[in-house]
Amino acid sequence: MAQKIFGAVELGGTKITAIVAKDLKTVLDKKVFPTLSPKETLNDIIEFFKSALNREIYEYQAIGVGSFGPLDLNPESRTYGYITSTPKQGWQFFNIKQEIESALQTRVYLETDVNASALGEFFLYPENRIQNLVYITIGTGIGAGIIINGKIVHGLVHPELGHIRIPHDYRQDPFPGICPFHRDCFEGLASGPAMEERWHQPPEKIPTDHIAWELEAEYIAYAIANLICTISPEIIVLGGGVMQRHQLLKMVQSKTRCVLSGYIKSKSLEDNISEYIVPPRLKEDSGILGALSMAIHESKSKS
Amino acid sequence: MAQKIFGAVELGGTKITAIVAKDLKTVLDKKVFPTLSPKETLNDIIEFFKSALNREIYEYQAIGVGSFGPLDLNPESRTYGYITSTPKQGWQFFNIKQEIESALQTRVYLETDVNASALGEFFLYPENRIQNLVYITIGTGIGAGIIINGKIVHGLVHPELGHIRIPHDYRQDPFPGICPFHRDCFEGLASGPAMEERWHQPPEKIPTDHIAWELEAEYIAYAIANLICTISPEIIVLGGGVMQRHQLLKMVQSKTRCVLSGYIKSKSLEDNISEYIVPPRLKEDSGILGALSMAIHESKSKS
Repeated sequence: MAQKIFGAVELGGTKITAIVAKDLKTVLDKKVFPTLSPKETLNDIIEFFKSALNREIYEYQAIGVGSFGPLDLNPESRTYGYITSTPKQGWQFFNIKQEIESALQTRVYLETDVNASALGEFFLYPENRIQNLVYITIGTGIGAGIIINGKIVHGLVHPELGHIRIPHDYRQDPFPGICPFHRDCFEGLASGPAMEERWHQPPEKIPTDHIAWELEAEYIAYAIANLICTISPEIIVLGGGVMQRHQLLKMVQSKTRCVLSGYIKSKSLEDNISEYIVPPRLKEDSGILGALSMAIHESKSKS
Repeated sequence: MAQKIFGAVELGGTKITAIVAKDLKTVLDKKVFPTLSPKETLNDIIEFFKSALNREIYEYQAIGVGSFGPLDLNPESRTYGYITSTPKQGWQFFNIKQEIESALQTRVYLETDVNASALGEFFLYPENRIQNLVYITIGTGIGAGIIINGKIVHGLVHPELGHIRIPHDYRQDPFPGICPFHRDCFEGLASGPAMEERWHQPPEKIPTDHIAWELEAEYIAYAIANLICTISPEIIVLGGGVMQRHQLLKMVQSKTRCVLSGYIKSKSLEDNISEYIVPPRLKEDSGILGALSMAIHESKSKS
């Protein structure tokens, strides 16, 4: 009898990562390739997945895909499983789920990239230890994957955490913000491109002792404090390019406590903030391993 | 064989409402009494519930309680089911759940008052039509009951929506806010007492054409826009004393669209906002009927 294996894909704007695995700990093969047209990229993905089947003992149980969006994730919708109105040339209304499913004759589970990352971090915790986790990415854009009571939050549309409004003191920071819709929403003030426009250099070039980082930490802290007051997560994971700056996480932890001013009584905040607001434990691999976890868990819960 | 009935209590700071019911539509008896000491109040509640049993055909299946807080709702905790560190004289660390359970020998389900109201409104919708609802109360304090994927959100501590930070333009509104922890958080700027301190008259005395209402609508709209960007609710219910002012709801609906600036694409926001941000359909009874729904649904799911 064939042995069941799982596939996972992380579909990014510039590169694709794909893996084949027996389980979360046993990755059999991995490949990274550039994002080209949907047709070429699909061919690359399928060819990679088929190559694992050459050793005839294997067959796919399920494939998990974490993709750039926007995605239609509403099972009732006519365009369910599609990448929808993306600005990315050629990819508009591409039925990513169906294409992979029919080429490989296996079930495909699709989520947004940031939700896949949230799942990757969530499944690291022993079952039932935590039920509520938020993964925030702060980079070219700002977004969040939110897990509540053990499930991804989709809701009416989907979370757009980058576009919440936070206090912006023009006397301290006269920069108007760059969001084309809201100007000074969270993303408009604190994304990588916002930092670059405000300080005339990309975040990775800004020196560590520059005032830019204090301000950045403050905006992130406001957003995190709002999240805590809204849904009371048990763990907050901060990923994305801007968070690569080493000392930023510590500044965010300390400023979040300042913003909350002792109002929320919890040991996690009062004594253990460095285990409450954390970097991704899977580092660069949260997304791809999250897509893999999704394939494994969803096919388990269906069988 | 005895017929199963349900009890529900809404425990407020100044008054208690209790009902006995066969189901959501058949209330057999109702009583309202003042909140006294825990001992006196408990006696009143028990006496009322016992009186329904005088007709010997009935017995309680379960009782739902919506109470002022803070409550300990963590089943793992030593003080589970207690009203904890309330400022309300005599009520600190009162084991409300256990006291009612042992007096009536029936299961008691406890939630905060605002969560009970959220459940009351949620169970009005046909099963599976909506899964995500937020009930916000704007009155003496500001709080929210949040239902996601069909379940109340508790999280690490519990939501404290009144304490999120929103933009506060001192040029337009030099009032510093009244929150003892954060000064100008949402509650510090927009609760009933904040309005009273800013305008030197209680909200119910402020004329309808006063600028106060524009400003109030704006702060509420910022908070709602943040909620929409964070968890994407399917329905937002606005209750509480301040919302009694008739025209405020329409102003909030229109300002919420302004704040979002067309970024969130959804028919609910674009064409149907008056069915998206709504007053409580159960009016004053969301809390007590929510407590009743909780008793009915929880005992069903346990049996």
